Amino acid sequence: MKPGIPKGTRDFSPVEMARRNYIFDTIREVYRLYGFRQIETPAMENLSTLMGKYGEEGDKLLFKILNSGDFRSAVTPEDYAGRTALQLAPRFCEKGLRYDLTVPFARYVVQHREELQMPFKRYQIQPVWRADRPQKGRYREFYQCDADVVGSDSLLNEVELLQIVDEVFTRFGIRICTKINNRKILTGIAEIIGAADKIVDITVAIDKLDKIGLDNVNAELRSVGLSEEAVERLQPIISLNGTNGEKLAVMRSVLAASETGLKGCDEVEFVLDALRDAGLNNALELDLTLARGLNYYTGCIFEVKALDVQIGSITGGGRYDNLTGIFGLPGLSGVGISFGADRIYDVLGQLDLYPDDATADLRLLFINFGPKEAAWCLGLARRLRREGISVEVYPDAVKMKKQMNYANARRAAYVALVGENEMAEGRISVKNMETGGQQSLSPEELTVLLKNA
Amino acid sequence: MKPGIPKGTRDFSPVEMARRNYIFDTIREVYRLYGFRQIETPAMENLSTLMGKYGEEGDKLLFKILNSGDFRSAVTPEDYAGRTALQLAPRFCEKGLRYDLTVPFARYVVQHREELQMPFKRYQIQPVWRADRPQKGRYREFYQCDADVVGSDSLLNEVELLQIVDEVFTRFGIRICTKINNRKILTGIAEIIGAADKIVDITVAIDKLDKIGLDNVNAELRSVGLSEEAVERLQPIISLNGTNGEKLAVMRSVLAASETGLKGCDEVEFVLDALRDAGLNNALELDLTLARGLNYYTGCIFEVKALDVQIGSITGGGRYDNLTGIFGLPGLSGVGISFGADRIYDVLGQLDLYPDDATADLRLLFINFGPKEAAWCLGLARRLRREGISVEVYPDAVKMKKQMNYANARRAAYVALVGENEMAEGRISVKNMETGGQQSLSPEELTVLLKNA
Repeated sequence: MKPGIPKGTRDFSPVEMARRNYIFDTIREVYRLYGFRQIETPAMENLSTLMGKYGEEGDKLLFKILNSGDFRSAVTPEDYAGRTALQLAPRFCEKGLRYDLTVPFARYVVQHREELQMPFKRYQIQPVWRADRPQKGRYREFYQCDADVVGSDSLLNEVELLQIVDEVFTRFGIRICTKINNRKILTGIAEIIGAADKIVDITVAIDKLDKIGLDNVNAELRSVGLSEEAVERLQPIISLNGTNGEKLAVMRSVLAASETGLKGCDEVEFVLDALRDAGLNNALELDLTLARGLNYYTGCIFEVKALDVQIGSITGGGRYDNLTGIFGLPGLSGVGISFGADRIYDVLGQLDLYPDDATADLRLLFINFGPKEAAWCLGLARRLRREGISVEVYPDAVKMKKQMNYANARRAAYVALVGENEMAEGRISVKNMETGGQQSLSPEELTVLLKNA
Repeated sequence: MKPGIPKGTRDFSPVEMARRNYIFDTIREVYRLYGFRQIETPAMENLSTLMGKYGEEGDKLLFKILNSGDFRSAVTPEDYAGRTALQLAPRFCEKGLRYDLTVPFARYVVQHREELQMPFKRYQIQPVWRADRPQKGRYREFYQCDADVVGSDSLLNEVELLQIVDEVFTRFGIRICTKINNRKILTGIAEIIGAADKIVDITVAIDKLDKIGLDNVNAELRSVGLSEEAVERLQPIISLNGTNGEKLAVMRSVLAASETGLKGCDEVEFVLDALRDAGLNNALELDLTLARGLNYYTGCIFEVKALDVQIGSITGGGRYDNLTGIFGLPGLSGVGISFGADRIYDVLGQLDLYPDDATADLRLLFINFGPKEAAWCLGLARRLRREGISVEVYPDAVKMKKQMNYANARRAAYVALVGENEMAEGRISVKNMETGGQQSLSPEELTVLLKNA
């Protein structure tokens, strides 16, 4: 019977790992260029840190860790008989696995506030765990790649984060469109139509315009309880189009009576202007129907779609004003982005965008003809490695065919054949695994060959 | 009240992370040069994969994950009343956290055996979790950095792994001595004195020679139940010294009657000879008292000590012959090493060996004098980042002093001051944060300055 792994989890084999490292290294390098610094937090957090932060459903999806030792002592048999699983879990378990990187980051900022120099720009690339029902593209263990700036209200942070998004996807070769909106604009809309609690329904309805047409959108708005007057006022917003500037002009006139709404327009305009000046490679589009995580974000929000693949959002983020308030440190503003590594992995694969050297990392395999030859190769291998070249000496003097199969499986660029003659002459027979061509080289010539890609 | 994290776990702040990344990146690069390929396995394994693999004590130290949903349904109130925590845990929990990288690797090899080309050289750098009592230098979450070759009996694998050890510590600048021994030699010793079950007691006693002297070692050997004749036979081994070659010669004569023992001598000799030919930077010493993980290893075993710091073993490993047997795939030989990242972290710190650029990664901070100036800096920042230079624009136009404090805290090499004059002239005032010297540069000159370290 084959051993297995828990459902919703994955092993990453060498080729997958090389591709994932390509993704993480690219993101990491861009974060570094923008001055973000990496932190890591423990996989286990106190359950009290996690509970109540992700809604009732989230509490259920937390993986909880059984207290070590006599966990049983916290619950008497009578209690056990009389309580539900949901009530018993926090008594059997003091710890849970990280559910996202945001709450641990908030906890980190509060706990370490005396050491931190504000603004604090951190990035974090770690797995998170959720007891979701596994399905295609949804896992119980997956990586998040977050960058956040806390301790600065400046919109330049939003600008930089969107530059980072643009730069990362440019490096990947993935064409994207970034949608931007602002929570204050949505609040403004709710204000002027007097329906603060309906804003999600409204954005959902408006978002269907292309699919169902204006009449049906209006019908849906009425059906969620909007007055005729409110629907009327929303008309310019529903049929909003044109350039970002044109959209903003319409929004400003619609939101003229809402101070908050106008503030939202100002913020979006500042970010759009700064990014136009800085120059982006990809489109940036004001989209009033974008309404992610309303309870959490307070200013600009953004979401990235891949243009050439049918897939959900591959990156998102926004401004929040009270992340650390839940841990007793109110008034600290922040803004962040999160790259969706699993979806980016799929997009790069579907578009065949992985660079060759992300998977083929072995430059040369020395065929093993016996102990004496292998010892000679070992010395040369050491020289080549000192030059940064990845090489292997096949460990066993088995049949040539088996060793060549290994070279193929490892996608080695070259194979070296060193027998008695070669050792005597101090030259190496080298075979190009792609062309099949063979040549005899000195160690110096071999080094030059392998160093050139 | 400050929020906290579970005992025995740690947050890694930016400076610590930069140092840890320096360690991991160095090890990873050397692994790559030797053709090892990275894999990752899930943090959670089925409890059935983990239980029984680490002894009775190990089972207790496994972190177990409460089944999600109605975990209670697996245990009736009557059962709950009548069972111990140890009996109940596997019924409440199907999954546990990885305890080391070895068992998950064995599980991986068996599960993926049809995809793997043997020999399979993998490395893995991931955290593991143990419910040990936390104490200085011992954590409940810590990283392991393992490399293993499975599917090859060749001693060249041992040779390569010891070359890797030598290369990694050379790159770190840590002077080491690697102790080597062979399980077969220990088996041989047990054979010739007729006390197979006493081999651990024997090595422990012999190891005390320097501290307690020969008479006391012999007394201890008698006290653990060795016959006078056995103690007599051990004398050449207890006072073994000289070069590795001299030690081997003595061992061969002592072990003349043990086929297994002589085989162990042959193996050690092959490895020592090959490494002498290949050339090592650090000492390699045959040490008969080295006896790590007896139940597990079957051939060569090794352990690394730092010469200039008083600390336990910082790396270890050895040959095992039946790693995958527990999962139904017998007869697959392997050999591996494991770097102790936490101890290496401490050694590098105590010897002040971290390179400067492992922690100081910000090259330049643009001081923010206002929105117009900041916008101008943003464009220049983009240019510099394209050259691979890490720069930041301070996001808020706050007091100079505050911004300079930030530059200091971030250990920025330079600060750029761009006011109206500078913008008009297209030149940047640049201050060297170490010397305090200031100069006026064109963007091109600035790029050159920052690119040169």
